[in-house]
Amino acid sequence: MNAQPKLKPYVIGLDLGGTNSVFGIVDSRGEIKATTAIKTQGFDKVEDYVEASVTALQPIIEQVGGIDNIKAMGVGAPNGNYYKGTIEFAPNLAWGHNGIVPLADLFSEKLGIPVALTNDANAAALGEMIYGVARGMKNFIVLTLGTGVGSGIVVNGQLVYGHDGFAGELGHVIMRRENGRSCGCGRHGCLEAYCSATGVARSAREFLLNSDEPSLLREMNPYDITSLDVSIAASKGDKLALRVYEFTGKMLGEACADFAAFSSPEAFIFFGGLTKAGDLIMEPIKKSYNECVMKIFKDKAQFLISGLDGSSAAVLGASAIGWEI
Amino acid sequence: MNAQPKLKPYVIGLDLGGTNSVFGIVDSRGEIKATTAIKTQGFDKVEDYVEASVTALQPIIEQVGGIDNIKAMGVGAPNGNYYKGTIEFAPNLAWGHNGIVPLADLFSEKLGIPVALTNDANAAALGEMIYGVARGMKNFIVLTLGTGVGSGIVVNGQLVYGHDGFAGELGHVIMRRENGRSCGCGRHGCLEAYCSATGVARSAREFLLNSDEPSLLREMNPYDITSLDVSIAASKGDKLALRVYEFTGKMLGEACADFAAFSSPEAFIFFGGLTKAGDLIMEPIKKSYNECVMKIFKDKAQFLISGLDGSSAAVLGASAIGWEI
Repeated sequence: MNAQPKLKPYVIGLDLGGTNSVFGIVDSRGEIKATTAIKTQGFDKVEDYVEASVTALQPIIEQVGGIDNIKAMGVGAPNGNYYKGTIEFAPNLAWGHNGIVPLADLFSEKLGIPVALTNDANAAALGEMIYGVARGMKNFIVLTLGTGVGSGIVVNGQLVYGHDGFAGELGHVIMRRENGRSCGCGRHGCLEAYCSATGVARSAREFLLNSDEPSLLREMNPYDITSLDVSIAASKGDKLALRVYEFTGKMLGEACADFAAFSSPEAFIFFGGLTKAGDLIMEPIKKSYNECVMKIFKDKAQFLISGLDGSSAAVLGASAIGWEI
Repeated sequence: MNAQPKLKPYVIGLDLGGTNSVFGIVDSRGEIKATTAIKTQGFDKVEDYVEASVTALQPIIEQVGGIDNIKAMGVGAPNGNYYKGTIEFAPNLAWGHNGIVPLADLFSEKLGIPVALTNDANAAALGEMIYGVARGMKNFIVLTLGTGVGSGIVVNGQLVYGHDGFAGELGHVIMRRENGRSCGCGRHGCLEAYCSATGVARSAREFLLNSDEPSLLREMNPYDITSLDVSIAASKGDKLALRVYEFTGKMLGEACADFAAFSSPEAFIFFGGLTKAGDLIMEPIKKSYNECVMKIFKDKAQFLISGLDGSSAAVLGASAIGWEI
């Protein structure tokens, strides 16, 4: 008679962001038992990144009793392909492999456990559905407003991966078809070029350049302005900074009105650095949405800010993929 | 011992269009056994429309052996709500009930069989999935190019209804945010205002007005020009008419590039009068899509014309809903 296979009580979640890679070891109730992090940038080859990750993981894996206690690993990554376990043509990650990086396989070989991978925003959406404000919802859209604009779309209670695993790139719908801002994806006029944290800083610089309006932001070197600076100025009543948030929120509302025509979600859930501005960004979004949307969708959707702290939503979401392997 | 319940071998499908209402009695293999039709317009109250429909249906119901042989009825209708069986705020149907018309219940009471209802374009998508070019596909989008522009979106093998039953209104994403054409929905710049059959005729009139370019279309009263006239002129090499198709196809390609960012479908399937122009419309769509779409989606999606004849796709699709009750 064989011994019963040992239960493995943990999964590893990895939130692979443009700047930081955050790892968490998570139990079946969604409690993060241990975390670690490395910088995402500074590696020429993905193999070096995986090596550095595994080195950083070793102590926290030991902390929970070793790799035998870990069932699997889930990764949320930019341009992550759920079906193939690859990161494909991620604008900020030059990691060789002709742009198609087999990250899940590489981690799986090094760690000796199964590894699955999805878009970082899809991971955030899973996190919201299992642990966050989308509990019980079957149709919702998560928009991540960080360095870029990402999205995770849930329809009929399932993540939308599309036929190739790349669905849910709502940061790259075109909002300005003429004279649109250049975008990291190589095209022009994308939502991300305006409504990411970097887009907000860019708007502030444009507004400063195109008027003589007094503003607290004029005290700074324009190139140093971040979305956080704009938020601080706006919270002090700075009119130019307030106009930047109105402009950003208006465009997000217009975009959400188009998204409603697609999947008519019960809620739009906003996640990431830009949501720290609270009503400064949320009120213009709601106002613009209700002004723009088709009559049949008016005043139906909720506009929510993620209820999960900091990067934990993404780590928890990534870990949730691990349980499903 | 009870007698075994009698098998009911047929369903009724109703394609409720802006102009005509086409009924078909369909067997389980998708064969249309009998059809009839009435004009959709000319009724002040929905009750009168249902009355006229049932009168028209009577002879073909008798033809298949009476109502006892009919399991259910499925309806494809503009602004049809699958969850509630209602038509809500359909721009071209002033049928009382404060704009929320309980069509499924009214038919069900009159006929004594269950009735389900969905968006006409969703019905077309079901038709394509069960009987048409989308057989075997799990992720695709049907765009209906008729009097308006409708859409049926399939994700993971399921129709996207959204939280309220109104998802899939891709004719009403905004393609021109400044100086957009007025649309039947009360807003401006919608895809439908440019890329429906009426939109194509409108483009031709605009192109004629804004230039002195010679064109076969100048022989007509501008107000009489239809998309069919534009198609005939284009097929004779008329340059202005060809430009109208290039303009229309370019915009459809741009729109599809945004839709790819949403659900990354395996195919875009075009249905309705405008597709009769064949390559005149399809080639500019494909060219524009591949120029506009994000790198990760390039050259992946198929662009297909519906393989189902005339209105049978919509009738078959509507009937398919009947089988699922």
